[in-house]
Amino acid sequence: MNPLDYVRKNTHTFLDELKAFLSIPSISTQIKHQPDIQKAAGWLRDRLRDAGIPRAEVLPTAGHPVVYGEWLVDSTKPTVLLYGHYDVQPADPFNLWRTPPFLPTIVGDDIVARGASDDKGQLFAHVKALQAFKATDGAPPVNIKCIFEGEEEVGSMHLDPFIMAHKDLLAADVAVISDSHILGKDLPSILYALRGLAYVEVEVAGPENDLHSGIYGGAVHNPINALCAMIARLQDEQGHITIPGFYDKVRDLEPEERAELAKVPFDREAWLQEAGVTAAWGEPEYTIVERTTSRPTLDVNGIWGGYIEPGAKTVLPGRAYAKISMRLVPDQDPKEVARLVSDYLKAIAPPTVRVAVRNLHGGKTAMVPRDHPALKAAFRAYTEAFGNEPVFMREGGSIPVVASLQTHLGIETVLMGFGLPDDNLHAPNEKLHLPNFFRGIETAVRFYQYLSDYTPESLH
Amino acid sequence: MNPLDYVRKNTHTFLDELKAFLSIPSISTQIKHQPDIQKAAGWLRDRLRDAGIPRAEVLPTAGHPVVYGEWLVDSTKPTVLLYGHYDVQPADPFNLWRTPPFLPTIVGDDIVARGASDDKGQLFAHVKALQAFKATDGAPPVNIKCIFEGEEEVGSMHLDPFIMAHKDLLAADVAVISDSHILGKDLPSILYALRGLAYVEVEVAGPENDLHSGIYGGAVHNPINALCAMIARLQDEQGHITIPGFYDKVRDLEPEERAELAKVPFDREAWLQEAGVTAAWGEPEYTIVERTTSRPTLDVNGIWGGYIEPGAKTVLPGRAYAKISMRLVPDQDPKEVARLVSDYLKAIAPPTVRVAVRNLHGGKTAMVPRDHPALKAAFRAYTEAFGNEPVFMREGGSIPVVASLQTHLGIETVLMGFGLPDDNLHAPNEKLHLPNFFRGIETAVRFYQYLSDYTPESLH
Repeated sequence: MNPLDYVRKNTHTFLDELKAFLSIPSISTQIKHQPDIQKAAGWLRDRLRDAGIPRAEVLPTAGHPVVYGEWLVDSTKPTVLLYGHYDVQPADPFNLWRTPPFLPTIVGDDIVARGASDDKGQLFAHVKALQAFKATDGAPPVNIKCIFEGEEEVGSMHLDPFIMAHKDLLAADVAVISDSHILGKDLPSILYALRGLAYVEVEVAGPENDLHSGIYGGAVHNPINALCAMIARLQDEQGHITIPGFYDKVRDLEPEERAELAKVPFDREAWLQEAGVTAAWGEPEYTIVERTTSRPTLDVNGIWGGYIEPGAKTVLPGRAYAKISMRLVPDQDPKEVARLVSDYLKAIAPPTVRVAVRNLHGGKTAMVPRDHPALKAAFRAYTEAFGNEPVFMREGGSIPVVASLQTHLGIETVLMGFGLPDDNLHAPNEKLHLPNFFRGIETAVRFYQYLSDYTPESLH
Repeated sequence: MNPLDYVRKNTHTFLDELKAFLSIPSISTQIKHQPDIQKAAGWLRDRLRDAGIPRAEVLPTAGHPVVYGEWLVDSTKPTVLLYGHYDVQPADPFNLWRTPPFLPTIVGDDIVARGASDDKGQLFAHVKALQAFKATDGAPPVNIKCIFEGEEEVGSMHLDPFIMAHKDLLAADVAVISDSHILGKDLPSILYALRGLAYVEVEVAGPENDLHSGIYGGAVHNPINALCAMIARLQDEQGHITIPGFYDKVRDLEPEERAELAKVPFDREAWLQEAGVTAAWGEPEYTIVERTTSRPTLDVNGIWGGYIEPGAKTVLPGRAYAKISMRLVPDQDPKEVARLVSDYLKAIAPPTVRVAVRNLHGGKTAMVPRDHPALKAAFRAYTEAFGNEPVFMREGGSIPVVASLQTHLGIETVLMGFGLPDDNLHAPNEKLHLPNFFRGIETAVRFYQYLSDYTPESLH
């Protein structure tokens, strides 16, 4: 029997096990669910053992533990690091769930439960793929290392220290993560690029203390007016960013990439409705899909200063503040962009105010070449499991672990999602489309098989 | 004996009475001082009676009472309405007072107490001037009506209704208010113009709900960015306001006015220190005194939107708000200016956001011609009492009662202050320079005398 036949014969068992996994309320942010976090970690370690993984352990961190698995089969074959997370979001508001969040329920073709798609169902597909190899070929065709964390929903604060402290243990040739969605039930997609982030806080200081606008207005520069004028100079009306040097490192979208992104189904009316706006905005020379995934942006995330209570107060305030973030695209560097915006803000600041810029937060961009062997393997695997070629997609947000793996372990990541856009992540009635769960297992089996055709070196 | 000799002979008595007035803690904003408000009103009514005013009453309002006095002597002579307020600011922080705030204390040439300058001492100077007429000439040379309110420090909320309900009672030819300061001990000044105010609140609406900037950034217009761009278009870098029509009604400063304002002593370093800035700002073609008193201005008094707590949140917010006020000069109209700014904001709003502008508050400008008979009388009175000609000054803030008297009674106001710029109004160690208290009484005596040379009609 080959592994795919094994998968097809065991769907009911796999589903029962998934239900058991989803029944554990492993909510990472709530103290009262600490025992459930421990329980989920232990349960998952046991399933790794069931799948034949010779080394399967729960390893401590300063926070919730990491479940680690290791199955080394052939040193001439690639080593794949499989990342996932066994913690889930809180389930409230409970009253909006049609079925209890931790009583997994089959509704039509879906399984409904907190964590079904994010990320228990998706990571479990890989565990079942490995089990299929054990039951048929005796072992997977590549070396496998698993790292399943329990803090993804609370910011993964102990993941980077764990990776840095276990570089040898985690050494691999490529990573795979199934914690994202594809474009549609029958339309798979491969995320090959993520946006990064530069985030600064600006303080504009005017007079030492708040002043009376009747006494000083007209002769003392108001820091709010000054801040607004400065912010207005960061961007033109169409959304092009006017900070000198900002676009220097931006890799232009290639014609083939644009052709590929044009395949993404896009319903303009539905998008407007979902966004809650009557009109789109932004760089007219790019499509909305391109603007939200492949172009750098600048947003003021917060602004404050002066009197902000109800009514009128004629204050000329001493300070004004703004939080400004920029989504970045390859090959922009967060630190360099933060410096560019800081330098520019200081350069355009009028001499009548003082400007301080603080770098709050940064996230690197990520991009895997579309002809990378691991993406080729994923492409073939998706095509065969779903009956359609996947679309190469870019993601507008960040998946910080991808940058961590790149930085600390020097490996690229294949983002191999099986979820759907309407899976209700972080919301009531989260679900996973069951046909995709099983196709996910098949995709994983085929991915590991095709990946074994490449040498470890070719993946770097 | 003439009234001025009477004043000079009775300085000790007047000072004792002033101390008694200042000893009453008539703090209008504090419930526990309600009895003191009543006590101060009754005490002041009794002093009006002592001064010979035949009708002196405490009249109720929906809040603190008004002390009303009336002394009609000759229907061919002008009737002067004297306004003042007997309530005071709270005295805290008490620990910063060098002497107890309600134990009036002579320190050098000053009397130190809460209310000494604002406004008990200044209004009491007029009461003593009237008494001097009673004791010598038997009656003042003009008809007198007094209205002393008890809510000036809490916004005078019941003054306008009182004036409107008592238009006949308060009918007069001109008003006089001593509740401001002159330029220096020996340098009197006459305020002949006040700035007005237009105050609006702007709401810029973007998406219905806050969005994730990674998912929508670049294709949904951020209302904070849009608001900043709109605010930046209200004013150029030098402070000139760029709202179409904004300056249309502004009366240009006449060369003689500018020459007069140039007489105002101005120490640039002291001003910068006081303002807490390292450099001045604003229309370069006007002096700082002109910018802060005689030119219209635009200040953002408050701005808010998005995430304003510590740290980074990548939100693309649904709403952004700003409070924007404009100081106005004659003959700008608050309602018209509010409409101009509202129309302009809506005209420049990009089609990707919705803009609402709410008119929060307005205050009319005020200007008395410098050749008005009442100002001529005040000019002569000041010149003789202080030994120096007063400078014609304009005030950057508003004194709302001036507009009320103009609107409801149709009369101009003479702002005849005796305070000094360093009187510590609303602050610890408030004081009144005693030589100015006595010169103030003399100025009032002479003012009423010179005013009697004019017909009632000539004052309108």
